Order: sequence, then C-alpha cells, then structure tokens
Amino acid sequence: MNREQLVTIIQKKKSFLCIGLDTDIQKIPPHLLHTQDPVFEFNKAIINATLPYAVAYKPNLAFYEAMGWKGLLSLEKTIEYIHQKEEQVFLIADAKRGDIGNTSTQYAVSFFNQPDPRHNFDAVTIAPYMGEDSVKPFLNFEDKWVILLALTSNKGANDFQLLTCGNKRIFEHVLYKSQEWADASKMMYVVGATQAEMLQDIRKIVPQHFLLIPGVGAQGGDLDKVIRYGMNQYCGLIVNSSRGIIYADHTEAFAEKAAAEAHKIQQTMAQYL
Amino acid sequence: MNREQLVTIIQKKKSFLCIGLDTDIQKIPPHLLHTQDPVFEFNKAIINATLPYAVAYKPNLAFYEAMGWKGLLSLEKTIEYIHQKEEQVFLIADAKRGDIGNTSTQYAVSFFNQPDPRHNFDAVTIAPYMGEDSVKPFLNFEDKWVILLALTSNKGANDFQLLTCGNKRIFEHVLYKSQEWADASKMMYVVGATQAEMLQDIRKIVPQHFLLIPGVGAQGGDLDKVIRYGMNQYCGLIVNSSRGIIYADHTEAFAEKAAAEAHKIQQTMAQYL
Repeated sequence: MNREQLVTIIQKKKSFLCIGLDTDIQKIPPHLLHTQDPVFEFNKAIINATLPYAVAYKPNLAFYEAMGWKGLLSLEKTIEYIHQKEEQVFLIADAKRGDIGNTSTQYAVSFFNQPDPRHNFDAVTIAPYMGEDSVKPFLNFEDKWVILLALTSNKGANDFQLLTCGNKRIFEHVLYKSQEWADASKMMYVVGATQAEMLQDIRKIVPQHFLLIPGVGAQGGDLDKVIRYGMNQYCGLIVNSSRGIIYADHTEAFAEKAAAEAHKIQQTMAQYL
Repeated sequence: MNREQLVTIIQKKKSFLCIGLDTDIQKIPPHLLHTQDPVFEFNKAIINATLPYAVAYKPNLAFYEAMGWKGLLSLEKTIEYIHQKEEQVFLIADAKRGDIGNTSTQYAVSFFNQPDPRHNFDAVTIAPYMGEDSVKPFLNFEDKWVILLALTSNKGANDFQLLTCGNKRIFEHVLYKSQEWADASKMMYVVGATQAEMLQDIRKIVPQHFLLIPGVGAQGGDLDKVIRYGMNQYCGLIVNSSRGIIYADHTEAFAEKAAAEAHKIQQTMAQYL
C-alpha cells in the first residue's frame, strides 16, 4: 500500500486506529479453546467485528512464535483472511527485526515476498541498533514500508534512546540518520504514546512522516495528547491499541465488546479528521 | 547449560567454534532438493560432519522464517535432532529480538520454554535498543543465556553503536548498563570479529564474560586477532562461522568439506587452549 492509498483509507473510515493482534492463547475466551485453531478463530472474530473502525492490523510476531510452527501457521491464516476482505487495510508485522544485510534480506522475504502473496505484510517494525545495512534490504519492495523504532513506549526507552550524543539524543540521531536511507513514502517511525509530549520535538525532525503510536490503552498513553502533538496535514498517525480492545471481554461477547472499544476510539479520532 | 558446563565442553573438545546454521534453500546442494525437507536434511548432514569440531550451533531465525511455518518446522526438527545427540552442545537462537516486557516474555517462551523441551535453546541474541524491560524476561530461566548485541560486525555498526555520549560510546553504555541486569553467568555479548582491535577496550569493561564473535570467514574477521585480544582465563570466546563452513562446497561432498573447514578452525583454536 502506498502513502496516498493509506491517507485515502484514513479519510474514508475517519479512523487511524490500528488493532494489535497480540493473541495469547492464555487470554482468549474459553469457549474458543475447543476449536481446531483457537488463535485463528479469535483473530477472525476480532477482525470481523472491528473492521469498520480500524485502518490497520498489527500482529506481534512474538505471540505466534511462542506457539512454535503452529503459531506461525495461525498467523499466515490470519493474514490470508484479511487479504480476502474487500476493504483494504494496512498490515503491519510487529517484529522489531534487524540483522546484517545478508540476513535482513531473508527477513524481508519473510514479511514482504512470500511465495503466496496473501501472506505478505505492508510494513514491518525494525530496530535501528545495527544501522543502515540492517534496514536497507526492507526498502527494496514497492509500496512496502519500514517502521523504525525511534522512541518506544516502555520504561527501558530511558536506558539508551534518551542518552545525549553531541547535541542530540539517540532517538533523534535515528530520526536524522535514517532520512538518508528513505523518505516519508517508505519509512515511518515508532513513537510510544507514553511519550506524547516528545512528539512536539519529533515533529520538528520528521514533519511529513507517518508515526506508529503504540501504548494507548493498557500502557497508559493519552490519545488526545498524541493527536494534539503528533497529527500533521496528512493525519500522519497510526495509533495502535492491543490489549484494551482485544481483551476487553472474555465471554462469548468478546468480539462485540472489542468492536465497542474500537468504535469509541474511532469516534474520538473522527473529531480530528 | 551453565557456565561451568560450557567451559568443560570447550576444554574437552579443544574448540570454541560455533557453526551458524544459516540454511538458505537457494544455496543448498541440488541433490538435496528432492528430499522431503531439504533444509533439515542439509542441517543433519552438516551437524553430523562437524560435531567433533564445534561446541555450539547457531541457527539464524531469518533463514527459517523466510520459508514461513514450514521453515519453522524444519528448525524445530533440527533442534530436536541436536538434542538427541549424546554430546552436549550449546544452542544459540540468533534472533536479535527485543520488545516491551509483556512481549519479550512471549519471545522468551518461544526460545526457552516450549511445551516440548527438545525445541528449546540455551541462548538467544537480543538487541538492546529498548532497554532493561525488553531484556529481563529472558533472564528468568535457569541455565539460559541472553547474548546482547554490543558491537556488531557490519558496516551499519558505525551509525549508532559508535556514537559517543558523555565519555562513552553507545556500545560501551550497553556493556556497562546491562551488567546491572545480569552477570557473566547469564549474559554474553556479541562483538563482531571485524572489530577485533576493539576487543581490548571491551575486555576492560567485561573481563569475565563470554563473547560471541561472528564475522570470521565470509565477513573478513581475523581469528588470530580475535583470540589475541579477546580470550580470557576461561576462554571467554565463542567464535561463529556460517557461510565459510556450511557453503564450503555445493556438491554431494558438501558435508565432508564443511567438516574439513571446521576442523581447520578447531586446530587453530586448540593451539590457544
């Protein structure tokens, strides 16, 4: 998906909500545990219920890998299911990968160039620690995106990301340096919603880019602040919520409750679009 | 595997060689492509041939994920196969993971706490960008290790790892800070062989730790320099070679040639042990 298509979907749905499909077998409603593939059944129900309110879905690979190859199969089925929908949505692999060039090329294949195109994502999250050649292999695919970690939503963000080198903090070095590798048509940045005030500084460095904002909901980020400090003329935001939506309820009504939570967030977003 | 066991294996085999199982379906000998699981057949042959010379194996997850869930199944079979051997070897998942605590906990399950213990690794490589809570969940398992990226072997290492903050470079901040999270009985560091001279500085900060050294062979690192600058009283080194060993030959004799390459490196190592 290219930038224009993404902006169009956001305007049409009046939403920039991304739903994190962090599907944990320990947390899904008990009545699904007797189905053949509980993770896939859960995801299908969540997707069907929330699709009117979401522009993006973001499975985090960790939750699928924790179940071994069967987890990866559940993920492939989920992605395939989303691709079958008539509505276009933006598909993010939250994987936080990054390795030497030769190896990042293999990761790029796994997210962007599978033999069956219905298993491909639109974007993948990447950790910047290993620098340019760890990121570049992901930039070789048309209409595919790198979402680079800049300032994350967790406490550990303080350990290295906020260290000052010269007159810039590390996450600012990442924002500056990575613009030599790709522009706003191929690259986005992760900025945690828990860091909403910092969005003012970040927008000075990357005024045009889309930002992926996790941390709204369970992690305590404030949506209004994120919008106030982070929105640009193209919207420029994809705001993710995972646990607050998908685990809103643990009964047979889980999908309806998830939809209600997603709808609530979408209504707030619509006021600003 | 704990530290004493690792040191014992190294002394017994007179080797600190790790073989990188970066198995790429495009590069394995053509006669294996007609088997049911070419990747697993290739790995089995490499393991059987090189086991006398290696103390560790390190599959890089990217190569398996590039083949979707079937790749992950080939990897599980490979790990299971190594666990069946009478000889104990150190098993490293080269995955360069790291996410918020809740998610890193899931990754830790996928490498250290699978329902079938024959699918578990001894260690996993972790990217430090997200700080303490992204690393800690991996430290909750007895005799399991975190191998934290410090100074990597690729050109992109210059982009952020070598920036100076205060009086220390970023990779030095990583070495200092992470010692607050775990000691040399649970943590190792990745230092690229292409950075051999830097090992002198690194040994001043982490004199006791094991270092995982990739980049010998195809990436141009020099084994003698690595040993001269990096070895400590417990050996303290695990030196990895991937392409230089596993793709030494592309005929039906590939496993013998791989063994010959591994033996050559082991003989150099033996001189220093």
